[in-house]
Amino acid sequence: MKYSQAFIPTLREVPSDAVIVSHRLMFRSGMIRKLGNGLFAYLPLGLRSFRKVEQIIREEMNAIGSLEIKPTVVVPGELWKESGRWDSMGEALLRLKNRLGLDFVVSPTAEEAFTSVVRDELSSYRQLPLSLYQINTKYRDEIRPRYGVMRGREFVMKDAYSYHTGDESLDEHYQAQGRAYRRIFKRCGLTVIPVKADSGAMGGTGSEEFMVESEVGDNTLLLCRVCDYSANVEKAECKLDYSPRFDINLAKGAASRTPSMEKIATPEVRTIEELCSFLKTGAKSFIKTLIYRALNVELDLSGAPGCGSLKQQKTAPGAPASYPEAFFAVAIRGDLDVNEIKLAAALKASEVTLAADADVRRITGAPVGFAGPAGLAAVPVIADFTVTGMNDAVTGALEKDLHYRHAAYGRDFEAWLIADLRTVRAGDHCPVCGGELYEKKGNELGHIFKLGNKYTRSMNVSYLDEEGKSRIPTMGCYGIGLDRTLASIIEEHHDDAGIIWPATVAPYHVIIIPIKYEGTVKTAADTLAAALEHAGIEVLLDDRNERPGVKFNDADLLGIPWRVVVGEKNLAAGKVEARRRSEKENRLLDLKEAADKLSGWIYGEIGELNSQC
Amino acid sequence: MKYSQAFIPTLREVPSDAVIVSHRLMFRSGMIRKLGNGLFAYLPLGLRSFRKVEQIIREEMNAIGSLEIKPTVVVPGELWKESGRWDSMGEALLRLKNRLGLDFVVSPTAEEAFTSVVRDELSSYRQLPLSLYQINTKYRDEIRPRYGVMRGREFVMKDAYSYHTGDESLDEHYQAQGRAYRRIFKRCGLTVIPVKADSGAMGGTGSEEFMVESEVGDNTLLLCRVCDYSANVEKAECKLDYSPRFDINLAKGAASRTPSMEKIATPEVRTIEELCSFLKTGAKSFIKTLIYRALNVELDLSGAPGCGSLKQQKTAPGAPASYPEAFFAVAIRGDLDVNEIKLAAALKASEVTLAADADVRRITGAPVGFAGPAGLAAVPVIADFTVTGMNDAVTGALEKDLHYRHAAYGRDFEAWLIADLRTVRAGDHCPVCGGELYEKKGNELGHIFKLGNKYTRSMNVSYLDEEGKSRIPTMGCYGIGLDRTLASIIEEHHDDAGIIWPATVAPYHVIIIPIKYEGTVKTAADTLAAALEHAGIEVLLDDRNERPGVKFNDADLLGIPWRVVVGEKNLAAGKVEARRRSEKENRLLDLKEAADKLSGWIYGEIGELNSQC
Repeated sequence: MKYSQAFIPTLREVPSDAVIVSHRLMFRSGMIRKLGNGLFAYLPLGLRSFRKVEQIIREEMNAIGSLEIKPTVVVPGELWKESGRWDSMGEALLRLKNRLGLDFVVSPTAEEAFTSVVRDELSSYRQLPLSLYQINTKYRDEIRPRYGVMRGREFVMKDAYSYHTGDESLDEHYQAQGRAYRRIFKRCGLTVIPVKADSGAMGGTGSEEFMVESEVGDNTLLLCRVCDYSANVEKAECKLDYSPRFDINLAKGAASRTPSMEKIATPEVRTIEELCSFLKTGAKSFIKTLIYRALNVELDLSGAPGCGSLKQQKTAPGAPASYPEAFFAVAIRGDLDVNEIKLAAALKASEVTLAADADVRRITGAPVGFAGPAGLAAVPVIADFTVTGMNDAVTGALEKDLHYRHAAYGRDFEAWLIADLRTVRAGDHCPVCGGELYEKKGNELGHIFKLGNKYTRSMNVSYLDEEGKSRIPTMGCYGIGLDRTLASIIEEHHDDAGIIWPATVAPYHVIIIPIKYEGTVKTAADTLAAALEHAGIEVLLDDRNERPGVKFNDADLLGIPWRVVVGEKNLAAGKVEARRRSEKENRLLDLKEAADKLSGWIYGEIGELNSQC
Repeated sequence: MKYSQAFIPTLREVPSDAVIVSHRLMFRSGMIRKLGNGLFAYLPLGLRSFRKVEQIIREEMNAIGSLEIKPTVVVPGELWKESGRWDSMGEALLRLKNRLGLDFVVSPTAEEAFTSVVRDELSSYRQLPLSLYQINTKYRDEIRPRYGVMRGREFVMKDAYSYHTGDESLDEHYQAQGRAYRRIFKRCGLTVIPVKADSGAMGGTGSEEFMVESEVGDNTLLLCRVCDYSANVEKAECKLDYSPRFDINLAKGAASRTPSMEKIATPEVRTIEELCSFLKTGAKSFIKTLIYRALNVELDLSGAPGCGSLKQQKTAPGAPASYPEAFFAVAIRGDLDVNEIKLAAALKASEVTLAADADVRRITGAPVGFAGPAGLAAVPVIADFTVTGMNDAVTGALEKDLHYRHAAYGRDFEAWLIADLRTVRAGDHCPVCGGELYEKKGNELGHIFKLGNKYTRSMNVSYLDEEGKSRIPTMGCYGIGLDRTLASIIEEHHDDAGIIWPATVAPYHVIIIPIKYEGTVKTAADTLAAALEHAGIEVLLDDRNERPGVKFNDADLLGIPWRVVVGEKNLAAGKVEARRRSEKENRLLDLKEAADKLSGWIYGEIGELNSQC
């Protein structure tokens, strides 16, 4: 391909909103242009690399027996109503009505579309397991799209969905997907951090996220300095300061050695910090108590304090019964934060949020800032493990400007439910080996997830087992964002001058720069390009009438793995000058051997990246 | 690929709405399933053929130097407002608002998105010509989607847009696109009817549609029995009964030999048919006069009858001035129909529709049914060529229950504008050679179109020419519907038993059917499959535990070009039985030579389809 015919509009300047490296370099190198906020057009250079990422993903999916299909991007709203997500998904779901008033969704993910296809075809256990995938356009109505294609509104995702007769088969495919993901990222030259987590909620029984480190990452990861433990902060556990094998008698014993609980006046004091400075003590001595509102609570609340009047309902036929709304007091040691994902999992709730002030006043009988577990009867108390070991604590007294001190678990209050609710942070200890945990910011590129029967149940999918009995298949889902993967490759592979593409995903393998595209230089450049292309190497030939400096800068910016300079002086000695984009030194090559040598090096790098991991 | 792992759910029954062959066969062979009205999921078998069509199109676009890009499917409404199509496109345009209240469009076509990308990058004539394309999801909000993927709501289209400094460059690329389209359809095994037409309106100066014959086609084509003239009825011309070189003196001379015009009572008579029977004469003696309402008329109406109070406006900056609304009386010989596309082109109007009854009464001073050109002063009269030769005609007298007879052009009335307005029909004569025209129904698979500067002007695209002067580029657009192309291949290549794929677009090249997949039969089938795959042949191995009859029926239904049956009896003699899907007779092949022979035949067929046309 001749540069002058390739439509590669490079730039020196970048838009002010391009704050991360990949966004800046994709713009500058003419890979993408903005069509609107969070909407990008891939130009020819960008699309070439994009298609290579796409092909790597396709090959690895095919290799594990997943079958490619192509549902639509615009999907009937009916399917999303069946699954319940029409209501439960937030506003990031782009809903629309057509001219006939019918509801549609621009797919952000496709559990419904796939499950509807499978539902209509599935009859026998002999058809399972079945794994299907698509590589297709998705839309997520981000309020603040940013970081270029890293967090756009429209993007392309590979999403696979698998259907199984049981957990063993699901686990087998889940593991195969995990291995495929590791190969995909390795082939793209990416260093990923696989983050395992037991997802708990939503019927899932396992999930793994594939993260790349990023200063602007959405996710906080906790990694162990000693072993290979890694977890998203949303789900991270840590070695507990107190034994999870809680013994109420031990607590009572400890409480008996504590002075009686007493009220103290704390005028104008509401936050933990204010209390600490007022009482001249540390946050670890406080029991922080927060009132939460939870939706669709599947946990059985019969007999729980204050829950006598709650009624269970079914959100959909076949769905388990749940309480549409319930309130809880959550107690945790004052220096810790509640992890709401863990809380939702403990309550089997679809969503938890801090209660409104009015609800806090109603439940605690006091203004916000004076909640505490002692004497609280209006709602169930959910305590983090840390609280069960506190027997001389300060906590809210359910009255304005009053706190308790000497509060002791087992004597002055007890929890209705004890659970691990803390947000783990750097400095906490690894739950596996006890090593110190540290934090990294990361972006999620892929996610594999055991869904269980959430969708197959709500959408009435069934098959007949070997004994002719109707059963609901179990399901997994597996996603990779292509745009993000491409941008992350640039985040990992660049220098001040531009991109440094791994050969597997480079838009071209070689850029040939004739110093002046005329005479013998032109002939030599053309001949070399033809020889390389004959060997299957993708060549960009810079035929522009530009100064060599401009061409060199553009070549560095574009990041093509090999640059070959054809100039009169070297050519007189039968030589051309080659340089690997990732290296500093030039190599003088015999023109006659150049094509062989270069293709050998390139195929070597591709082979290494594609080798099994 | 093993059949049992390929997810090919074949069916005997089809949905009642599957009325055309391709829809029925795509359903029955498990190529597609319905997700909603006009929304189809391609299953693995269907997607394989779909991707082959896609790849053929991509190769041919690349071969003519068009560059692939990938804009988004969801596009900011702003761009469509700039071009004016936000308002001018009908309700088939799927408009939507996101959560922030911003307007978006799910692209049905992408003139705006491409032109916006080009606008930002274009500065110099040296960057032109530039041709870009995408192969991407489109949405058209069909009210009554039908015929499967032939007229769905969501579909995939290849759309290319080219930008040029002038007509010569545009024409060169337009011709190259036309040649590419011919190659694409040939490679797909399709017989297309290229229909040339001078599009006239909307700034276009040329277009060609690529049609396939179809009993349910949207388009009526007129073809000449003698030469290769072919045209869409919307634009077809014919040899005129009267000379287009109209001479008013000749008309006046003829009129002078006609008795004076006189009113006749025609009570309760309104239609041409009623008049014919009432006056006992043929429709050719009547002047049919219809009142039309036209929008955005660019034709200069200064001095036209009844137009004194009309004011020109600009719909967009840079757009030509036009009259937002104007009314016209259109006169045509009674046996002919007005072609509204021709009428709109003659008036340079964006749209023409029959006027409402109230407008007809206001303009003609009479109820509907009594309009005529004689004495009509409220609006300009537009006459078809046929009318200029009528000098003893019957026509409405602008009064209830009254007509004129002996009406003569040039004496009793004259037109303000004379044009070719007739709808051509079978039996008319070819405008090129005079041969008889006949009709066919056709579906449009592709369309190439010289757009002129409609979009580049309204969207403010410019470049500097060699003299540093700012100029507006001229533009072409070129579309192919992939889903339609795929379905049309099936329409052309099938028999009662199923599909008969051309080898270039077949989902697999060979289906191997072991009579029983066990023992030596299994070994032979596996070995043959491996040998074929080694030669690059795509093989489906029917490993199912089904009766041979079921397997044979499915193989015929799927339409794979070659079927190889491996059975114990033939195998004992070292033979297998091969049959081309398009032929009746079986060929006994030596097992050892089978892979070579089959791959030779298959590559032969592929080579022939891919050869230049």
